[in-house]
Amino acid sequence: MEKRTDAELILVGSELLNGEKQDHHLKYFGEVLKGVGLHLSECRMVGDDEELIAEIVRTRLTATHVLLVCGGLGPTEDDLTREAVAKGLNEPLGFSESAWEEIQSYFESRGRKVADTNKKQAYFPKGAVPIPNRNGTAPGFSLEKGGCFIAVLPGPPHELMPMVEDTVMPLLSRVLQRQPVFMETFRTTGIGESTLASIIEGVFAKFDMFVFSSLAFAGGVDIIVTERTPAQERDMLKKNAAVFEQELKRILGYKFYGKGTVSFEMVVGEALARRGMTLSIAESLTGGYIGKRITDIPGSSRYFLADVVAYSNEAKVRFLGVSENTLMRVGAVSEEVCLEMARGVREKTGATWGLSTTGIAGPEGGTEEKPVGLCYCGLSWNGGQKVRKRIFPGSRDHVRERIVYASLYMLYKHVMGE
Amino acid sequence: MEKRTDAELILVGSELLNGEKQDHHLKYFGEVLKGVGLHLSECRMVGDDEELIAEIVRTRLTATHVLLVCGGLGPTEDDLTREAVAKGLNEPLGFSESAWEEIQSYFESRGRKVADTNKKQAYFPKGAVPIPNRNGTAPGFSLEKGGCFIAVLPGPPHELMPMVEDTVMPLLSRVLQRQPVFMETFRTTGIGESTLASIIEGVFAKFDMFVFSSLAFAGGVDIIVTERTPAQERDMLKKNAAVFEQELKRILGYKFYGKGTVSFEMVVGEALARRGMTLSIAESLTGGYIGKRITDIPGSSRYFLADVVAYSNEAKVRFLGVSENTLMRVGAVSEEVCLEMARGVREKTGATWGLSTTGIAGPEGGTEEKPVGLCYCGLSWNGGQKVRKRIFPGSRDHVRERIVYASLYMLYKHVMGE
Repeated sequence: MEKRTDAELILVGSELLNGEKQDHHLKYFGEVLKGVGLHLSECRMVGDDEELIAEIVRTRLTATHVLLVCGGLGPTEDDLTREAVAKGLNEPLGFSESAWEEIQSYFESRGRKVADTNKKQAYFPKGAVPIPNRNGTAPGFSLEKGGCFIAVLPGPPHELMPMVEDTVMPLLSRVLQRQPVFMETFRTTGIGESTLASIIEGVFAKFDMFVFSSLAFAGGVDIIVTERTPAQERDMLKKNAAVFEQELKRILGYKFYGKGTVSFEMVVGEALARRGMTLSIAESLTGGYIGKRITDIPGSSRYFLADVVAYSNEAKVRFLGVSENTLMRVGAVSEEVCLEMARGVREKTGATWGLSTTGIAGPEGGTEEKPVGLCYCGLSWNGGQKVRKRIFPGSRDHVRERIVYASLYMLYKHVMGE
Repeated sequence: MEKRTDAELILVGSELLNGEKQDHHLKYFGEVLKGVGLHLSECRMVGDDEELIAEIVRTRLTATHVLLVCGGLGPTEDDLTREAVAKGLNEPLGFSESAWEEIQSYFESRGRKVADTNKKQAYFPKGAVPIPNRNGTAPGFSLEKGGCFIAVLPGPPHELMPMVEDTVMPLLSRVLQRQPVFMETFRTTGIGESTLASIIEGVFAKFDMFVFSSLAFAGGVDIIVTERTPAQERDMLKKNAAVFEQELKRILGYKFYGKGTVSFEMVVGEALARRGMTLSIAESLTGGYIGKRITDIPGSSRYFLADVVAYSNEAKVRFLGVSENTLMRVGAVSEEVCLEMARGVREKTGATWGLSTTGIAGPEGGTEEKPVGLCYCGLSWNGGQKVRKRIFPGSRDHVRERIVYASLYMLYKHVMGE
């Protein structure tokens, strides 16, 4: 018999295939399934095609331990997943009084009248158990057949995710009784991917129980550590991961800034809060993006005071006290103005740090002397200041993204006392 | 014989399946393929699994017109796509001197030495034509076999996209000689999905050459119009789409704000620019998010003056002239403070419009009287003002996203003279 795969995912929806909608479910499932020790071996994205979905269910039933199907459980005619799965399982659909009552009360609690078409959502393949949906009308369902656990869920993320976390994951843990895949993410910043690799290659070689991979993004590089083979002794893995962490700390210092899903903004914020420091920002080309990132973090009011987006020269003079003379002499995109912005916002708000950006995001507005992509970030503190010039390639979005990170990194470095 | 599908996509990469990486290729291909008249019928995402990839190629060769395979063309051992596709095609791999020379000169032009492992990238299945890659070392390749056009491409987006646009699309147009799929997107705001459906259902019925679908997001609803069957007379479709557009305008007015990929921020900006109006913003809970959105648009300096993110009460008083008395009496999250913020930023910058937000994004900081999700947006102009209270459910991110749109919609409505 064919060796079974751990888990497979089927995402149903024509909007995923015609460029209308960006999928986010695959990444989500890839992450959460590891929590119950499952590796996703394939994801198939298909349209609302009853025959194809039925055939996939039929053939994969004996070839995988876990089959997840999402999307197409709505009340309209082109929602065919329920019928397709029943056909693939070769089980008839039956009406559930209790599910129908729950759908009705979902509507009633919102002061709406249930439509006749919703009745369809109370039908399930024989042997299936409904999965309650507290954020929508479509219940899901799960069943076990031929050694395969199948769960069928609606597509909208705010309906699907609570159903996965409240019902599907507990069911899977019970059915499988596996331990989670051992994985840890170590986040670094301020070093490029290939330089980082050459610095720590030697360290990797000492840990043969792990597989290492790296993932670069605009603000840094993540190192992802996964167990090489399943069912290794958990304490041994944990101990080795802790030793690896110490090695990283020793080699990278503050450039290794955190583990797991912690964000750089969060680490910068915590570093400020721990020292009782405060931050104010003065932005030009980034237009509020740094402030947005800082305030993404709950509790940022402990250290964040204000952000002045001074897009026009008048606003730079009025709110930040930038000198008109400097603006006339060297222009808004200059070291001098960047530093005056940082100092201005710091002094006016009494913050520990004043952080600033100015530059040309493009696509228009560049000159030979000051090309598109030219950016400055500046930092002011009591008794000192620093400015950095960068020229970033790429689109307007890319340039803005890069200078946001560059400025946060400049702040972080100084807060850490470098 | 089985009816052939138009096109199928295979994305190779374990990082897509284990939650490490968000895929963006599927949406990209869904969009560009429509330009050559192709509908994607399925996308399969698989790991670096030679047997599985070979099997998919073998079985789909006779079942689809176009098969695209992306990822796994790198020089390392776990890059197996080249071998897998050759196996699936049942063609031997052969060495290409000219491709090898190009790989070598790619390295030389960057002052790097080519590694021996890169030699592997100069092997192609018999009958394949290399697809040049100007942004990386891995050339792709294409061939026709059994009535199927196959293209194999590297995974990194900045390598793949130019290869698709420069080589694959022109090849496909030539091979297929189809006209692009007729599709138009009509963007609306300020009306919920179900209300919108009930308002314009009657209009849909008049256009039986089209299929209509709708896509809701935080800021509005898109109506997507696609030709019902291929090869309908193009002029007739265009004429009918223009009539549909007129009907939408008549029924929805300014709530139908644009077509295609135009963003709401862009439309709001254009409306301001056309009228010679200017905008300043005062943000609290949104922390710079509105300013970021406004300045995402190139040329926004024509109408955008400044954004003061006054997170602390002191900053509200200092930069915006909010009265300490009001802050003490009713607190920062209140109608009164929201209006004082809008007026303050408008008066201090001399803008036509002052737009403001205040609220509690959560997850902490809510009280019985002022729960998490409570938000205000305010608008001030010469001779008038307006404030709106909303309570949004959901996460911190969701609350912030919703109030950003609500405030932009408030501004838009007033700019349009409603």
